[in-house]
Amino acid sequence: MDNRSLNTGGFTLPGEAGYETLTLELAKKWGADVIRDSDGTQLSPEIIESDYDIYSTLCLVRADNEWAKANRSKLQQCCVMSRPVTAASDTVSVDLLDGYFKEQLVINADDDPKEWWQVFDRTTGEEVSVSDWSFDAASGAVTIAKAVKWHRYTVNFFCYRIWEEISMYNHVTNDWGDKEHLMPIDPIYPEARDQIRTYLKRWLEEHPHTKVVRLTSMFYNFWWFWGDPEKQKFIVNDWGSYEFSVSTGAIRQFEKEKGYRPKSEDFVNAGLYNNSYKVPSKLYRDWMDFVNAFVVEFGKECIDMIHEAGKLAFVFYNDHWIGIEPYNERFKDFGFDGIIDGIFNGFEARKVAECPAVSVREIRMHPYLFPTGVNGEPSFLPGGKPTDECKRYWTDIRRALLRKGVDRVGFGGYLHLVENHPDFVDYIEAMGHEFRALRNLHLEGASQEAPVKVALLTAWGNTRAWACCGHFNRGNYYNEVMEALSGMSVETVFISFDDILENGGVDTSIDVVINAGLVDDSWSGGDYWSDPRIVEAISEFVANGGGLIGVGEPTAQRHSSQYFQLSHVLGVDRELGRTRAFNRFEFEANADHFILQDNQDGLELGKKVDGIYLFDTQTEVLAAANGTPALSVRSFEKGRCVYLAGYRYDAANVRLLLRAILWSASKEQLMEHWQCSNYFTECAYYEKAGKLVVINNSNEPQETVVLSPKGEFSVSLAANESKIIEVS
Amino acid sequence: MDNRSLNTGGFTLPGEAGYETLTLELAKKWGADVIRDSDGTQLSPEIIESDYDIYSTLCLVRADNEWAKANRSKLQQCCVMSRPVTAASDTVSVDLLDGYFKEQLVINADDDPKEWWQVFDRTTGEEVSVSDWSFDAASGAVTIAKAVKWHRYTVNFFCYRIWEEISMYNHVTNDWGDKEHLMPIDPIYPEARDQIRTYLKRWLEEHPHTKVVRLTSMFYNFWWFWGDPEKQKFIVNDWGSYEFSVSTGAIRQFEKEKGYRPKSEDFVNAGLYNNSYKVPSKLYRDWMDFVNAFVVEFGKECIDMIHEAGKLAFVFYNDHWIGIEPYNERFKDFGFDGIIDGIFNGFEARKVAECPAVSVREIRMHPYLFPTGVNGEPSFLPGGKPTDECKRYWTDIRRALLRKGVDRVGFGGYLHLVENHPDFVDYIEAMGHEFRALRNLHLEGASQEAPVKVALLTAWGNTRAWACCGHFNRGNYYNEVMEALSGMSVETVFISFDDILENGGVDTSIDVVINAGLVDDSWSGGDYWSDPRIVEAISEFVANGGGLIGVGEPTAQRHSSQYFQLSHVLGVDRELGRTRAFNRFEFEANADHFILQDNQDGLELGKKVDGIYLFDTQTEVLAAANGTPALSVRSFEKGRCVYLAGYRYDAANVRLLLRAILWSASKEQLMEHWQCSNYFTECAYYEKAGKLVVINNSNEPQETVVLSPKGEFSVSLAANESKIIEVS
Repeated sequence: MDNRSLNTGGFTLPGEAGYETLTLELAKKWGADVIRDSDGTQLSPEIIESDYDIYSTLCLVRADNEWAKANRSKLQQCCVMSRPVTAASDTVSVDLLDGYFKEQLVINADDDPKEWWQVFDRTTGEEVSVSDWSFDAASGAVTIAKAVKWHRYTVNFFCYRIWEEISMYNHVTNDWGDKEHLMPIDPIYPEARDQIRTYLKRWLEEHPHTKVVRLTSMFYNFWWFWGDPEKQKFIVNDWGSYEFSVSTGAIRQFEKEKGYRPKSEDFVNAGLYNNSYKVPSKLYRDWMDFVNAFVVEFGKECIDMIHEAGKLAFVFYNDHWIGIEPYNERFKDFGFDGIIDGIFNGFEARKVAECPAVSVREIRMHPYLFPTGVNGEPSFLPGGKPTDECKRYWTDIRRALLRKGVDRVGFGGYLHLVENHPDFVDYIEAMGHEFRALRNLHLEGASQEAPVKVALLTAWGNTRAWACCGHFNRGNYYNEVMEALSGMSVETVFISFDDILENGGVDTSIDVVINAGLVDDSWSGGDYWSDPRIVEAISEFVANGGGLIGVGEPTAQRHSSQYFQLSHVLGVDRELGRTRAFNRFEFEANADHFILQDNQDGLELGKKVDGIYLFDTQTEVLAAANGTPALSVRSFEKGRCVYLAGYRYDAANVRLLLRAILWSASKEQLMEHWQCSNYFTECAYYEKAGKLVVINNSNEPQETVVLSPKGEFSVSLAANESKIIEVS
Repeated sequence: MDNRSLNTGGFTLPGEAGYETLTLELAKKWGADVIRDSDGTQLSPEIIESDYDIYSTLCLVRADNEWAKANRSKLQQCCVMSRPVTAASDTVSVDLLDGYFKEQLVINADDDPKEWWQVFDRTTGEEVSVSDWSFDAASGAVTIAKAVKWHRYTVNFFCYRIWEEISMYNHVTNDWGDKEHLMPIDPIYPEARDQIRTYLKRWLEEHPHTKVVRLTSMFYNFWWFWGDPEKQKFIVNDWGSYEFSVSTGAIRQFEKEKGYRPKSEDFVNAGLYNNSYKVPSKLYRDWMDFVNAFVVEFGKECIDMIHEAGKLAFVFYNDHWIGIEPYNERFKDFGFDGIIDGIFNGFEARKVAECPAVSVREIRMHPYLFPTGVNGEPSFLPGGKPTDECKRYWTDIRRALLRKGVDRVGFGGYLHLVENHPDFVDYIEAMGHEFRALRNLHLEGASQEAPVKVALLTAWGNTRAWACCGHFNRGNYYNEVMEALSGMSVETVFISFDDILENGGVDTSIDVVINAGLVDDSWSGGDYWSDPRIVEAISEFVANGGGLIGVGEPTAQRHSSQYFQLSHVLGVDRELGRTRAFNRFEFEANADHFILQDNQDGLELGKKVDGIYLFDTQTEVLAAANGTPALSVRSFEKGRCVYLAGYRYDAANVRLLLRAILWSASKEQLMEHWQCSNYFTECAYYEKAGKLVVINNSNEPQETVVLSPKGEFSVSLAANESKIIEVS
């Protein structure tokens, strides 16, 4: 097979038993080189024994339900905070699972509640003495004696998880009826590890045709509480949170290794848990480290077995991905051969594309071939528009693939669902061609980045590079900015406050630091902004000529005399409730600025932070909304700052951000370095290949001119089109 | 003179020397019984010796500028925080008055800076050691040695105030050119008190025709920092703040009386000072008490002199009103005969109308007869529309006067400015008639209130009854609600958190508690919401059948597991940055509810708090905006709660609030108790007089039906009209 063909290769097709003809027809039309199974589908011998490589999905923790049923104390757990109950007298009873999905969670009373649980008066924040509450296993309720009337009480308790969440989602989404619920076992227990070893050994023997074992993923799913179906479908869904690695067993093991024992409240945090928006505590970082070390250690053992069986091991960067952490140092120790993720957007494409220490990087496109999509769209149901959906996702993903390449593309699910969508079948064929063309360019050499290095500064830093809390969190300024950056020809890195503290400053190779978020959240930085070393380091960075871009509530904390702790650098601050008696500097917005040169029709930044005011009279306002600055700029010593009261990813705002970056880096001339005149279009120059790619991100035809050191290139593009141009 | 005439009486006219004919003509046309002077105007003998009563304005602290100039150490002071300066090296110099108006403030270096001032590193919040800074009087700058590079530094320092602020405003507004700047002296010093006694004695002798001494006001002006004219006009303007009573002299006296000495930072509070939006500290309450006691003591002495001279003493409820506190216990000790305030709105009318312990209550209308208005409107300049302005204010004030009467109405300023506005002259004549008609009804007996008692709960309570931070703070939920209440036929009281703590609960005579504000502000309550006793008391109140209405961020505090500390009662809470990973209960808004019965065209609540979510599934959403609840209701035990994510005073929302009050009080039937069917109209029933007043608050004709126990009354009203109807 020609590795550089535009018609075939680099494409993973979901096969489906009973639809062998369709499977093989589409494999040919779409140029697949690999056929995979999916949760809920089987591959028949006719498919398995075809000439295609076979990927087989394998989820080790839900693979043997008989063992799980026979070893219920080895099921995975989690720590749960009951819904608050208001005491109407001096005794109050808390129904622990009220509001939760009882097919997901079962109370763990095997580990002594008095040792493991905690009861809190959430009105005062104080823990209720262990002697003042009792648990009744029959009713599943904790009764608190000596309650204070009208206080809110909650119970932190441990649960077994009796329905593996991804399988649960697939089961419910596809109406699998009375198909048995699969349960997740926890390899923290030696018995479970033995069982997984035994199972994997047998499985490898039983799958001689499998070339790639596609692990989905290792052991612990991201955090996903479902609700009582009478009340709400989901309670929380956080791709980044380790809450489903928490168990009494893991805590005991953690204590042995780290020398101290977390309490339930360390995981519950008054109901915040350790969600991705919360600045991680020292304890939680220790916990992540502990889980990561364990997952890598036992994961490596499994991967070694796969390799010994002559197969490759790919990992799915989702589902049970907790503890895998591709961007951490230990990841290389797994020995994975490839990584795959199911994605919708550009930033997720970059997350896969920049994954280190693997040979193959694959993106699984959406819509997944399920009746309804993860985003709730009726993809393959009546009224669904799978082609439009896919085109929308591909447009965002393609931008990112201009910058960093991946090796493969694929789909998953029930192949037969595409039968009645011939336009979708045709579109995927064309998309495959376009994908391969881009992949081939990267195989020749990287696309040029503008020589400007942008660092996104958060509490997570590189640990959550190109990630937030799951798929695109629309409205989250950090995620919106990250999505814009994913297709921009700038070098993007992710730094944390701890990086700055450890390095004693901002890495001098960085041109521009971006801080985007809301007060207290992990993206803005929360309490890190009370640390004067951070204020000093970033002030110094800007004073020395660096750029700083703040979005929303950058550098915000209720600390001392300002709310934005870098108000003296950014030149703006925000009014809170207590400061409304003050008058503020008046201003006139002046849009005549480099940053707004392409946005003369006005800004649409989406939802903005209100109450912004000028720190002094040296700040220049470029745009205002409701009488307060929406976009402002300011010099600080040798550096430059930009403040945006909001940010929303769209073509106009990608251009705005690009210009803000170049201006704040004092590198305005780079607007003529492989940039398009028309912001609905973007381009990438592949120097080694001598080729220029120009893409149209809009649904309308566009004319554009590429400005470059090699001259100007005028290009006409049909709606959504991409063109490859030879550059001599 | 007939006390009940509709044509004359109860009207104070500003006379003006040089315009004697106009003065006497208008006095007749407008039915004045009193002629007054104003700051900047004189009354000539022809006016003074006419048949009219004479009010003479007198501001004792700026009355004798020669004495002030000769005794500059006895001028009033204030404590100032310099603008923050960022250290660019290990030495930083702070120009203390940078940004301030140097014609208002002069640095006080007479009192040892090292003893009185404080220098802060505002990046860390730590005070700089006294040995690490020095003050240079020549440059007016403090130099800080051992500064930390890039930290922000401020200096708290004391200033003399060298231009009395109200006179400064009048001077600047009327272009008085090189007219001498009047300086305020501080009666905290015995020498200044002696001077005031001497001056007042002479003044009383020299004003034989004066019937009423109109004190403007006692000694200390509300807080009003002006800015460097190059940068900003005003820095802060807070009618309620005691910052201009602060001086080295007063602090020394305070220490003697209270036994401890405040530091400059107690007044500066990291730049918040003690503004009205800040929850008052214990120290600040002590300070207010100290100033109040002093102002009453020395004030009484002055008033006694006025009485001994056979004159009456009226006080202006504005300008130098600090320490007077009409709603405090000590106020009656002054012995004032009357109170006057310059007002725009209904809530201000109530503030005057409910002032205790005086015989005469007078409202001074706007526009003030100055070229431009306090609100910046070009009242009597070309383009000004003084009639429209006055009609707008009167419409809001009239609503309030339906509920509580005042005795007099008046104007101030330069009378000649009305000469070219014949429509204004006619309108004021008509307004005078309407005013007297309402006044006369109250003289016969109070208007009926619906038997429902509403308590506005804030950190200030009754100390700031019918007041906020000055004139109408549009956008402040508390002020918007208060303005709506000012013309509503319900009993309104003002309670504080301390009242609840001292009484061990909410007064049981109260039907509905309203908490309206933003987190941390004095209107919402700030840290009081971390006190479980408050949570218990209000929960208990509602559980026993009380009503609770929350607006904006009611009961909000970052404390324990919820943000709204009464989320379990209100049934809603608010998302902050760290909670965005969570899913929330879905809902459908259902507008079919008693509260919305008259608002079927939709709600326009103005700017709303975002991110509101349901505490559980028992809360009913009546209206939503951007996918989150804007108006919700919920029962809690025997009581009922209403939550509004925003509130703006207008006719539709007055009706909305009335219905919310009656519903939450479980007194829905009161909608038929002297209420109008058409919400652009309102009515009041004067039982003793057997009269019903119906007013049209809109600029269009309206038809309405008054529902009452005495039957229905259909009324047609021209735009803005009021009608008095006999009820048999």
